[in-house]
Amino acid sequence: GSISAQLVPTVVETKKRFTYGERAAAATNASGKRLFQLMQEKKTNLCVAADVTSAEALLELAAAVGPHICCLKTHCDIVSDWTTSTATALTALAKSHNFMIFEDRKFADIGNTVVHQCRDGYHQIASWADFVNAHSLPGPGIVDGLKQAMPDNSGLLLLAEMSSKSNLIDAEYTKNTMAMAVANADFVFGFISQQKLREMESPDPFVYMTPGVKMQQEGDALGQQYNTPSNIIGDKGCDVAIVGRGIYKSETPAKAAEEYAKACWEAYEKQL
Amino acid sequence: GSISAQLVPTVVETKKRFTYGERAAAATNASGKRLFQLMQEKKTNLCVAADVTSAEALLELAAAVGPHICCLKTHCDIVSDWTTSTATALTALAKSHNFMIFEDRKFADIGNTVVHQCRDGYHQIASWADFVNAHSLPGPGIVDGLKQAMPDNSGLLLLAEMSSKSNLIDAEYTKNTMAMAVANADFVFGFISQQKLREMESPDPFVYMTPGVKMQQEGDALGQQYNTPSNIIGDKGCDVAIVGRGIYKSETPAKAAEEYAKACWEAYEKQL
Repeated sequence: GSISAQLVPTVVETKKRFTYGERAAAATNASGKRLFQLMQEKKTNLCVAADVTSAEALLELAAAVGPHICCLKTHCDIVSDWTTSTATALTALAKSHNFMIFEDRKFADIGNTVVHQCRDGYHQIASWADFVNAHSLPGPGIVDGLKQAMPDNSGLLLLAEMSSKSNLIDAEYTKNTMAMAVANADFVFGFISQQKLREMESPDPFVYMTPGVKMQQEGDALGQQYNTPSNIIGDKGCDVAIVGRGIYKSETPAKAAEEYAKACWEAYEKQL
Repeated sequence: GSISAQLVPTVVETKKRFTYGERAAAATNASGKRLFQLMQEKKTNLCVAADVTSAEALLELAAAVGPHICCLKTHCDIVSDWTTSTATALTALAKSHNFMIFEDRKFADIGNTVVHQCRDGYHQIASWADFVNAHSLPGPGIVDGLKQAMPDNSGLLLLAEMSSKSNLIDAEYTKNTMAMAVANADFVFGFISQQKLREMESPDPFVYMTPGVKMQQEGDALGQQYNTPSNIIGDKGCDVAIVGRGIYKSETPAKAAEEYAKACWEAYEKQL
């Protein structure tokens, strides 16, 4: 209330934003620590969503945007000619350009099934992805299953919010998802969300990554809703902006990525 | 309350269960109609979950259980050596043994992404699956996306409830999922649920399919919880029992499928 606000020093309101370096030091998962460090050193908080359907287009895009991103978000299951060579080439690009590979699989099954979906099958995601994500919907068994399937030093993001129109996530769902992450902070290192999910007086070890980012606010015909870099990184306090169509549909993806990275980084620096 | 129960004739309680044939006549989707008809004619309400990781094991299982099932539930993404030949062989077995193929992909992304995940990619699910399922979590865009991706006469099941421990689905979520199905009843023909979700005085066009069915009630180490055939088909009023480990882990899957089919069908017939 307004009375206590007058009596108590407004620590949270005047506190500057913690740097990604300070967040790296606070991280409780190897993948999260590496991501924050990489962001701090490479000075980029941009993730490109590589929603392309051929291996050639994927590798071309990765090579073009690689210098400007902290991670590349993949959907291996939409690439029609994906082979193990695609994974090999992608990890080589990730190494040379210093970005992480985030397979946006949105695992959403019971623990026993996601073990196989993540480790086995044609795509063998666990063998090449630095980290993956999952819906918390099936309960904590999905976290246990993915922890079994993924190698050491990898990590998991939970979807705490979605950007699509009329999605069924409510405040209680988000709260339960956060509790699931806190209970598994050795493996879960952050969230897919529309905003930073908590105020802390010390650096938050969790990363907040937000999809649906575009220079212009608009929507698509299938319910996706967009936000701008300054809105997401600045106003909403998110850490990583995920840009898809604004970059991969550009005539010049490298140039677009450079512009998005600049806008996202400036929105972050403005709050330090 | 008890007073109105005394005044109103107890229509619902004394009403016999509608037959699968009556349900077929009420179905508003081609896939749902075919499934109910098939169940009525073949006298089986058993679905086998083929959670095996090699193409040989999958096709052997499909051949063994084929005569006893209404549909086979697949996870193409856990089969390490899946090829287009696997899909061809599977659809041939489905034709010869008269069962439907249900790819349990649990789509869970925004509309634009699921279009590609369902139609494109290595597995090209839309080209061989009779029907698929999805989480309603992302909102109605996922239904629109899958409607675009799947061929005519196919259908979609929505997950209205889950069987895994501490899952985040609540009554409101289930209600919203049902509303999404009702609004898209030309394409959505039923639910993955733990029980029949509504009482109707006329035959319900929606099918209720329930996973986690085993002769013995128990759980697994990753949060799955089981129910028996008589519990699921009888007490809970579900239409299709989905049996996984009780059959594919059996030394004699054909015999196990026959036993499960008998138990599930008897539980249904007892209520007619």
